[in-house]
Amino acid sequence: MGRITTRHKAVRFDLAGESRARIDTVAVEEPLEIRVGGEQLTVTMRTPGHDMELIHGFLLAEGVIRHRDDILLARYCSDTETLNVVDVTLRDATASLPVSAQRNLVMHGGCGLCGKTTIDAVLAARPTAAGGATEYAGPAWTPQILARCATALRDGQAVFERTGGVHAAGLFDGSAHPLVVREDIGRHNAVDKAIGWSVMHGEPAVGSSDRADRSGLALIVTSRASFEIVQKAAMAGIRLMACVSAPSSLAIEAAQELGLTLVGFLREDRMTAFTHPQRLQHETSQEQAQARVAEGRMVTN
Amino acid sequence: MGRITTRHKAVRFDLAGESRARIDTVAVEEPLEIRVGGEQLTVTMRTPGHDMELIHGFLLAEGVIRHRDDILLARYCSDTETLNVVDVTLRDATASLPVSAQRNLVMHGGCGLCGKTTIDAVLAARPTAAGGATEYAGPAWTPQILARCATALRDGQAVFERTGGVHAAGLFDGSAHPLVVREDIGRHNAVDKAIGWSVMHGEPAVGSSDRADRSGLALIVTSRASFEIVQKAAMAGIRLMACVSAPSSLAIEAAQELGLTLVGFLREDRMTAFTHPQRLQHETSQEQAQARVAEGRMVTN
Repeated sequence: MGRITTRHKAVRFDLAGESRARIDTVAVEEPLEIRVGGEQLTVTMRTPGHDMELIHGFLLAEGVIRHRDDILLARYCSDTETLNVVDVTLRDATASLPVSAQRNLVMHGGCGLCGKTTIDAVLAARPTAAGGATEYAGPAWTPQILARCATALRDGQAVFERTGGVHAAGLFDGSAHPLVVREDIGRHNAVDKAIGWSVMHGEPAVGSSDRADRSGLALIVTSRASFEIVQKAAMAGIRLMACVSAPSSLAIEAAQELGLTLVGFLREDRMTAFTHPQRLQHETSQEQAQARVAEGRMVTN
Repeated sequence: MGRITTRHKAVRFDLAGESRARIDTVAVEEPLEIRVGGEQLTVTMRTPGHDMELIHGFLLAEGVIRHRDDILLARYCSDTETLNVVDVTLRDATASLPVSAQRNLVMHGGCGLCGKTTIDAVLAARPTAAGGATEYAGPAWTPQILARCATALRDGQAVFERTGGVHAAGLFDGSAHPLVVREDIGRHNAVDKAIGWSVMHGEPAVGSSDRADRSGLALIVTSRASFEIVQKAAMAGIRLMACVSAPSSLAIEAAQELGLTLVGFLREDRMTAFTHPQRLQHETSQEQAQARVAEGRMVTN
């Protein structure tokens, strides 16, 4: 695992005419090459650390794997001096092409590249177990719970605290308990690491016998929500995600079609649900809310 | 040109127990495929509009072109229904491989993929005219001027004002005058559009006969500075860039080697120079600063 932060000489200027030499702590950015069976799949610029989680999350989002067991071996390449190249050996050597590559190929059919084709590629690739909007049986999320998730996510941002330069993503259960919080200079990497953690280490959700079941978890991100983030959530079988900043048009359209509740502008006192808002409901009283948290009660809606 | 914003139904929840249906304006995200000579080069998720600028900026950053004249023709493909595929015909059909592709290939030499190799790929590809740190003869930037650039950039964020969901990048002259401000859901796209504008429409900088000379301009971005953004600035021959948020370690290391002044945490009352701070100097008095702005005076340092 490489260093996560590093220190650089800098000069701070203020408008009163002062300038002062100082040492600033910044987030590390390094390339990571992901190879599958010795062939380069992608290079991502990431903050070192939790690389194996990143790879598990990335391959899940791209539809290359569905479970931890689909990876026989993932190791840093020994023929390079740095810990920046990981080679993955899949159980099924004929595993499918990454979703993003399929997306790029779809348009050559002549139908035109557009938001619809990008969504269709994810619809075709995502696990069927994720089901439709009507089959949801996870927690009934409340604004209070999501606000507490946001606070917990902020509290988990140790690297941001020191650098101001990283995004965070976390997976939370229906009691606003953080299962995992990960930080990275790339928001897509932070999401891959958090989801990848659940692929590698996650326990089955309450009421599920499938250890890869993430349908009862919320994905919370500090950034905006783009199409790519919604893709990652949907491919992981997550049914509710919330971002601190704004969602894009395509993120909303994708979340709508993929049966994902997408919450934007998540703040301490308010939030906006852009799709499938029925999974977000006010408790009728604070007492009920507290009782629910204490019990970890599940409801169907 | 597609739509830049769109309106979606949403439900706003507050923690007092209220929920209210509303219409929210969000930034549009759509894929753009860039083809060169009919072959797919990349697909980027962007906010429609200024696509031709985006393509010029992207191809410059990737070292595929150096001047406007290197592109014979760039047009939306007529065999697709959407305005999301652009095919570029280059003057020189044997133009070089994109820098990012070279970067990915470098490591196969066995030396290991690391920050150094990513910087080397840009060092090898960037225009020699950009020169070294000692040859700088652009404006002497002051904290006051950069703070005014930041204010002007914020004032130019029309789409952010409506959506809260886009980044902005702008090119400014030594008097804090914005030559161009562009917004996009992707910060790399915003930079490509701003630099691409200067490739398509830019006038030569003061004291230069080269119409592609951007050495007297500052690139200001609302986001953090990653390696990728520094690459784009360096490939465009820009000598000073400033970001509102934090720079990454690799952005700093690249800016140091590429002779670029990198300013981070650009605020109204302070900022931090991480590399080549000599190009940022306090005026000895406010009167001098004002006189300098009025005259557009250039100095060598």
